[in-house]
Amino acid sequence: MSLLVVGTVAFDAIETPFGKTDKIVGGAASYIALASSYFTRDIHMVSVVGDDFPEDFLNLLKKEGVNLEGLQIKKGEKSFFWKGKYHNDLNSRDTLDTQLNVLETFDPIVPESAKECDFLMLGNLVPAIQRGVISQMKKRPKLIVLDTMNFWMDIAMDELKKTIAMIDVLTINDSEARQLSGEYSLVKAAQKILAMGPTVLVIKKGEHGALLFNKKEVFFAPALPLEDVYDPTGAGDSFAGGFIGYLAKTQDISFENMKRAIIFGSAMASFTVEKFGTERLIGLSQSEVDERVQEFIDLVQFDIALV
Amino acid sequence: MSLLVVGTVAFDAIETPFGKTDKIVGGAASYIALASSYFTRDIHMVSVVGDDFPEDFLNLLKKEGVNLEGLQIKKGEKSFFWKGKYHNDLNSRDTLDTQLNVLETFDPIVPESAKECDFLMLGNLVPAIQRGVISQMKKRPKLIVLDTMNFWMDIAMDELKKTIAMIDVLTINDSEARQLSGEYSLVKAAQKILAMGPTVLVIKKGEHGALLFNKKEVFFAPALPLEDVYDPTGAGDSFAGGFIGYLAKTQDISFENMKRAIIFGSAMASFTVEKFGTERLIGLSQSEVDERVQEFIDLVQFDIALV
Repeated sequence: MSLLVVGTVAFDAIETPFGKTDKIVGGAASYIALASSYFTRDIHMVSVVGDDFPEDFLNLLKKEGVNLEGLQIKKGEKSFFWKGKYHNDLNSRDTLDTQLNVLETFDPIVPESAKECDFLMLGNLVPAIQRGVISQMKKRPKLIVLDTMNFWMDIAMDELKKTIAMIDVLTINDSEARQLSGEYSLVKAAQKILAMGPTVLVIKKGEHGALLFNKKEVFFAPALPLEDVYDPTGAGDSFAGGFIGYLAKTQDISFENMKRAIIFGSAMASFTVEKFGTERLIGLSQSEVDERVQEFIDLVQFDIALV
Repeated sequence: MSLLVVGTVAFDAIETPFGKTDKIVGGAASYIALASSYFTRDIHMVSVVGDDFPEDFLNLLKKEGVNLEGLQIKKGEKSFFWKGKYHNDLNSRDTLDTQLNVLETFDPIVPESAKECDFLMLGNLVPAIQRGVISQMKKRPKLIVLDTMNFWMDIAMDELKKTIAMIDVLTINDSEARQLSGEYSLVKAAQKILAMGPTVLVIKKGEHGALLFNKKEVFFAPALPLEDVYDPTGAGDSFAGGFIGYLAKTQDISFENMKRAIIFGSAMASFTVEKFGTERLIGLSQSEVDERVQEFIDLVQFDIALV
């Protein structure tokens, strides 16, 4: 089924304990689209770049089934740029530079061809802009997944809550779940957040896996213990892309199927962190993805027969 | 099969964001023995207390099948005492007071009746003393599990490594695994630590679950997301007690069975943290334990059929 991805397409410059990069392609929508393209080919993207953005990458997206009609390319302007440095544990980072550039005036316009998409993935953006996208849809998508971050909780909590009230699945990390709910216990936090509107909450815990909650059930997806993690940038977005891509492919939004989708999302994230930027996510074969998913299956497989 | 538990039996005074206690019963061996008693009744304990220690608790242990022949009760002396305060996130704590008392001169003597135990659980103690216990055994136990902590890595790394070389299963937390190996990646850390002697490594990650490694395989056991965590004291020891208790009961030390044992250990730990000290671990029914284990099964249950 058709999937609309909205979010940033940008440049990143990244430094980790294992190396550093010059300007490379990044942005939430880039990771989401690439990860979801392993599951569905009916993808539309709404985003904005300057005319400094490499055509190669856009051609790659097209080749992977991503319709770029909704990508605004601003003549004479520069793409969004973020520069950051990760600390030794890779769990925290400092922003060294942020140049909003085209993002400063970004007004997403959903093209006619994408207004009836069944699945909508809203990558991290200004909450009011995320809401604006929903209002442009001709019919209410079957599933709306929203990613956001602590930054908007700090400066625009009311706006964010309005947006959250309109969606189905919210994906945030554990400290954001605690901030949004005011509860330390993630079980209590989840119930408070689900009372704000979404029917499902995904709490991302990075190297510690992810939790999936609805009002009655909870599911835990582990993260794969990896030999080498080079660059965590884009892990959450690749996770979201794999998650919604799998749901769009299978056309099944039951909680049971979301469990599977979270495993596929975790698998895509596990690839992303193995190299800098989007590199590892490009050109994966079906058997590589399957083998990785099998590792997740094996990782938590046990068999207890309670009498 | 018979199980020998060696470790501290002590008093704790605990403060958490949810309340505080006066002197209550604590100590690694107390938690280990209580947790393992849900699986096997052939338990021997080697430890030391002063004559200030409550007979009620010792009688409770006896009732649960724990042979206290190896428990030294020092006349006119005081039991080991630890006082600590947990921070708001319960993941870190400050030690406010430590009174070694009887522990200062503790020289564990394994009674004849316990010298042929099949399973040996060495709770956290001075590494040389742990080694001394092993040397007192008449025959090499079928399985030796050792718990230790960063403190010994800081002040007695060589001694600790000598002890680690003699055991089968090491249980430490993630930061200790990193310290012991000098590797940040837990996968690399595990391989380095397994090269030091143990055939199996358990990395405890508290609220983030636990990893089980041998040289070829890895298994991940989740932690149960709990509504309320009151007091993390003894969680690691309850985990170890459930783990070795289940192995002693089933008499099967294969990696497959250790996966099950880790789930039972995690279940026991999940009870412990729900109340202060050992309270929640006392008087659990079989069906309570089974229901809790079922929650772990459900938590990670998914079904993906790769073609």
